[in-house]
Amino acid sequence: MKIRIAKNSGFCFGVKRAIKMAEDASKKYDEIVTLGSIIHNPQMVKKLEQQGIHKVNSLSEIKGRPTIIRSHGVEKNTFNKLLEQNIEIVDTTCPYVSKTQEYTQLLGKAGYQVIILGDKNHPEVIALQSYSDGNTIVVKDASELPDKKFDKVGVISQTTRNIEDLQNLTRELLPRCRELRIMNTICNATSIRQKATLELAKESDLMIVIGGRNSSNTKMLAKISGKYIKTHHIEVAEEIDKKWFKNVENIGITAGASTPDWIIVEVYNKIIEYLGNHEKKISKIEDIPGLRSKDER
Amino acid sequence: MKIRIAKNSGFCFGVKRAIKMAEDASKKYDEIVTLGSIIHNPQMVKKLEQQGIHKVNSLSEIKGRPTIIRSHGVEKNTFNKLLEQNIEIVDTTCPYVSKTQEYTQLLGKAGYQVIILGDKNHPEVIALQSYSDGNTIVVKDASELPDKKFDKVGVISQTTRNIEDLQNLTRELLPRCRELRIMNTICNATSIRQKATLELAKESDLMIVIGGRNSSNTKMLAKISGKYIKTHHIEVAEEIDKKWFKNVENIGITAGASTPDWIIVEVYNKIIEYLGNHEKKISKIEDIPGLRSKDER
Repeated sequence: MKIRIAKNSGFCFGVKRAIKMAEDASKKYDEIVTLGSIIHNPQMVKKLEQQGIHKVNSLSEIKGRPTIIRSHGVEKNTFNKLLEQNIEIVDTTCPYVSKTQEYTQLLGKAGYQVIILGDKNHPEVIALQSYSDGNTIVVKDASELPDKKFDKVGVISQTTRNIEDLQNLTRELLPRCRELRIMNTICNATSIRQKATLELAKESDLMIVIGGRNSSNTKMLAKISGKYIKTHHIEVAEEIDKKWFKNVENIGITAGASTPDWIIVEVYNKIIEYLGNHEKKISKIEDIPGLRSKDER
Repeated sequence: MKIRIAKNSGFCFGVKRAIKMAEDASKKYDEIVTLGSIIHNPQMVKKLEQQGIHKVNSLSEIKGRPTIIRSHGVEKNTFNKLLEQNIEIVDTTCPYVSKTQEYTQLLGKAGYQVIILGDKNHPEVIALQSYSDGNTIVVKDASELPDKKFDKVGVISQTTRNIEDLQNLTRELLPRCRELRIMNTICNATSIRQKATLELAKESDLMIVIGGRNSSNTKMLAKISGKYIKTHHIEVAEEIDKKWFKNVENIGITAGASTPDWIIVEVYNKIIEYLGNHEKKISKIEDIPGLRSKDER
C-alpha cells in the first residue's frame, strides 16, 4: 500500500499572499470584514473568523469598517463605491486575477467581442465581466458559444480553467471570426498543479482531492483525476469512508490552491489510521511521501 | 456512371481580377511583363504569353517596361525598387493577400513574434515575410514550431491553407504563450472550395483535381480529397489515363482557383471520350453536372 501526494498540492502564491495580508490587517484593525469569502475554503474562512475577520455579503453590511477585497477580486463598481465611501481597503485580489481584469478592460476598449471561458456564477468571473464594456459572453465550454460569426473576438480565461478547454474553445471560434486574440490567463500554478494531479492519478488506484466544494480549481482537479481513476472530492478528513480503500494499492492525494496544509495533514493521518498499518502519523505536510521539496508545492 | 464537378471549382475572385487586369493592360501597352507567374497555372501563363504578356524572373530583366505584380504579391523591397525606378506598375495582388500583408506589418510593428502558417518557398509567403520586421517564423504545420516559449505571438496564414492546419497550430501554440493573436487570413473562397471538394470526394469513387502543380490551393484540394478516396492531380486533359476509370461508378472533378474553365471543359470531355458512353461533349463549364449555377462556382 502506497500513499503519495501530488507535487504542487495546496496553497498557491495568491492564496498565501491573501491570507498573510488578511492576518496582518487583523492585527492592525480592531474590526475588519471580508466582502465575500476571502478564499474558497470554508474551514480556512472559519479559522479567520476566529481571528476576528468577519465575512459580510454586501456593501450595506460593511458599516464603515476596514474591508478586505477577496482574492478573486470584486466588481469594478463595488470597488469604486468603497473608494467613494472612504472605506479602508485591503486588496488581496490575486495579482494574476488583476492582470486578467486589465486584459478584459483592454480588449473591451479595443472593440473586441470579449468571451470569457469560465463559470458565470464564480466571483472571479462576475468581477471580470465588469471590466469589459458590458457586452461580454461567458461560456463554460465551446458548446455554449452562440451560433454566429464574429469580427474581432478577445478571449479571456478564468485563471483556474484547464488549457484543454481553452484549446477547444479556440478551435471552435477560429473558423467563425476574422481575428481571434487570446490572452492565456490560465494561472501557471493551476496548470502545474493539474499536470501533477494527472500524473499521480495515472499511477494510482484511488485519488482523494481535498478542497472547498465551492473552489473552482479544486473541482477541476477532481474532474481531471476522475477521468482516469476513481476519485473522491472531500473538504475535511471526517468525510473519508474506510470502505474506499478496499482492494486499493496506490492512493493519491491532491489539494486545491485554497486548501490549507493542516487539512491535508489531517486527511493523510486519517487514511493511515483507517489502513491500520504501521506507518507513523505526521505533523507537517513535508513529511507526506511524494513532495520532494517545499519549493515543488 | 456519374461525373460531377464540385461546386466552387476554378477561378476565384482574385484570379479573375488579375487576369482581367493583365489582359486590359496588354491592350494599353505595346510591351508588358509579369514579374514571376501572374497565377500558378502554366497553361494560362502560356496563353497570356501569346497575348504579349511576357514573364520575367528578376528586376534586371524588366528593362523599363510596364510591369504586372503577380496575384500572390511581391516583396516590399521589390515593390519599392519598381517605384524608385519609375516603372509603370499594374498591381494584381489579390486584395485578400494585400490584407494579409497589412496584418503582418501591423503585428510585426506591435512587437509580436510573427508566425506564418505556409510554404516558405511559395511566392505569397516570401512576399508576406518581407512585411514583418524580418523576425518571422514560417511553419508548414505545428510540427515545425521551435521548441520554446513565447510572450506575444501573432499568427498569419497563407490564404490557401486549410482551417484544420490553423486550428492545430493554434492548439500547440496556446500553452506556450501569454498572448496569441490570430488573423484568420484563410481566404473564404479557399475554404468554401475545400469544403465542396471534401463533400464530393465523400460521394465519389475517384477524384480528378485539376490545376497547376505549383498551385498551393490545388495541392491542398488533392490532399483533402486524397484522404478520402483515390485522387489524381492533373494539369491538363492529356494526362488522364483510361485505366483510372475501371470499376469506377462515381467520378468527381474539382479545380483550383487558378485553373481556367477551358481546361476543366477539356478534362470533362476527355473523360466522356474514354468512358465511351453516350453523354454529349460540352463546350462550356456550366454544362457539367454538379454546378447548380454560375454563382456557386
